[in-house]
Amino acid sequence: MNLLHYYIGVDLGGTKIRVALARSGGEIVDVRSFPTEAERGTETVLANLQSGVDVLLADGGCPWDKVAGMGVCVAGFYDCKAELMIKSPNLPGWEFFQLKQKLEDLFALPIVIENDASAAAYGEFCFGTGRGQEDMLLLTLGTGIGGGLVLGGKLYRGSRGFGGEIGHIPILPDGPRCGCGRRGCLEALASGTAIAREGRNLLAGHGTTLLREMVAVSGDLRAEHVFEAARLGDAASNGIIDRAAYYLGRALAIAVAILNPGIVVLSGGIAANGEQFFDPVRRHFHAAVLPLLATEMLIAGGRLGADSGIRGILQLVEEQLE
Amino acid sequence: MNLLHYYIGVDLGGTKIRVALARSGGEIVDVRSFPTEAERGTETVLANLQSGVDVLLADGGCPWDKVAGMGVCVAGFYDCKAELMIKSPNLPGWEFFQLKQKLEDLFALPIVIENDASAAAYGEFCFGTGRGQEDMLLLTLGTGIGGGLVLGGKLYRGSRGFGGEIGHIPILPDGPRCGCGRRGCLEALASGTAIAREGRNLLAGHGTTLLREMVAVSGDLRAEHVFEAARLGDAASNGIIDRAAYYLGRALAIAVAILNPGIVVLSGGIAANGEQFFDPVRRHFHAAVLPLLATEMLIAGGRLGADSGIRGILQLVEEQLE
Repeated sequence: MNLLHYYIGVDLGGTKIRVALARSGGEIVDVRSFPTEAERGTETVLANLQSGVDVLLADGGCPWDKVAGMGVCVAGFYDCKAELMIKSPNLPGWEFFQLKQKLEDLFALPIVIENDASAAAYGEFCFGTGRGQEDMLLLTLGTGIGGGLVLGGKLYRGSRGFGGEIGHIPILPDGPRCGCGRRGCLEALASGTAIAREGRNLLAGHGTTLLREMVAVSGDLRAEHVFEAARLGDAASNGIIDRAAYYLGRALAIAVAILNPGIVVLSGGIAANGEQFFDPVRRHFHAAVLPLLATEMLIAGGRLGADSGIRGILQLVEEQLE
Repeated sequence: MNLLHYYIGVDLGGTKIRVALARSGGEIVDVRSFPTEAERGTETVLANLQSGVDVLLADGGCPWDKVAGMGVCVAGFYDCKAELMIKSPNLPGWEFFQLKQKLEDLFALPIVIENDASAAAYGEFCFGTGRGQEDMLLLTLGTGIGGGLVLGGKLYRGSRGFGGEIGHIPILPDGPRCGCGRRGCLEALASGTAIAREGRNLLAGHGTTLLREMVAVSGDLRAEHVFEAARLGDAASNGIIDRAAYYLGRALAIAVAILNPGIVVLSGGIAANGEQFFDPVRRHFHAAVLPLLATEMLIAGGRLGADSGIRGILQLVEEQLE
């Protein structure tokens, strides 16, 4: 295929669907977001995706017969052997859903599906913080914690596509309940959800804390409030962040002993707090890791922000279909 | 190189050097063991290796000019980028030793060096329990705990060759001291050394235990005594084994969430106890792991015994030099 052609990249999230149109070679023509309406079920979500793609192609003046394939990245457990969406935290009702087959039927295009953190890892590896590395671990730190691995220069999926699920490594026996149903997973200790939960626990106590005033204004409590209160000098909020960083640092010490990567990239909303979070994470990491494994290894933020998944899946679909 | 030629495989251990002579294609002509005499320093060890190789070649009627290369596997941290032995638990005085260069000078042969657990993993992958798999984790459970990874059908080394160091993942904050100097590594909780230490702690107490009688006879206390006492019905000894299996099971739950392998192979002296150890390890693993990651995944013993490292390094040297 050496004529000009296009690829579609999709980041299928719980609240919005991001769709990108790119030329072969990687140049992105346009990116748009559309509501997912996940609560209305699979048919509505797929219809929203389809109309989003239609809009993008029409506005970009790209005829359907110039589109060579579509890549979709999605949060959750996608079984790459069985080509089956096992379950997704963001998409209720998608259990054991034949996503690939469904999309092939709908779009009559070759479809590539990937876990969103894996796609983000590949994006940062090819175009962002991971450039020039061989072995890289990426974590997406948001409401949940996802992970993606690039090993020996290639995206690593594992035997069924579940490689890199660092959010669900058991860290604290009898720890807080995780979204997966078990206790003490990393995600239950260091995600945005975990930080917000600890913030609420703090407010349930009687101590004075800046956090109380901030939440009285905004009405709800998100991880971002805890970070902001800590930046403004609130010791209790800083303690919450330090504890999340402690668990994340220990988890990285574990992952690094297993993988010996050249770099660990932290991305997602929580990582957007930058050094305020990276600094204690690095401190706890170095306290826990075998020093030999940590020399010459970087812990750094991602560079592509919310585009990492789209960039990664576009690269993957082009590599796999060319 | 299409004439008949030979490879030498070496497993360089703390007490003995195992040397194998193999024909191209993998057929092993002979394997012998020689004393390492590690305490006498690097020069003596290398002289012992050299005379061992001489004996093997003379007895096998193999002239030097038919030998195409030598593979050496060794316990410890071998930096594959710097081609430097960083340190080895079994070989005092080998810190920052240029092992590859030294062997090339000594034997005037192409040399391949690999961590012993990585070589064992590759051996079991090519010829043993891991045959037919794509992604595999192997643990060597002996006086220490080593680990090797075969991912996507290839030996995975990591950025400096330290991949798979599962013995040094931090498991228990403020746990027992590990040989590496830190506290609470898996190796300090589930190795033969750890099991023997817990056995001695048991005897330091006042309870009656079968273990006391057994050790009164044998004079020292090794992990094997604890296993034997447990087999004979000693509840306290069984408790020690169950606790080691608990930590190992949790460590495997962690490694499996990161790697999503098709199989975990347990080898080494402790694994030779078979189901007596595997059964509680599997139980604790399943209690800790995200169930989705554990379906269709095996935990099984190695098949090659003490030959796994030699078989693996011979295969590696042949692949790399052909």
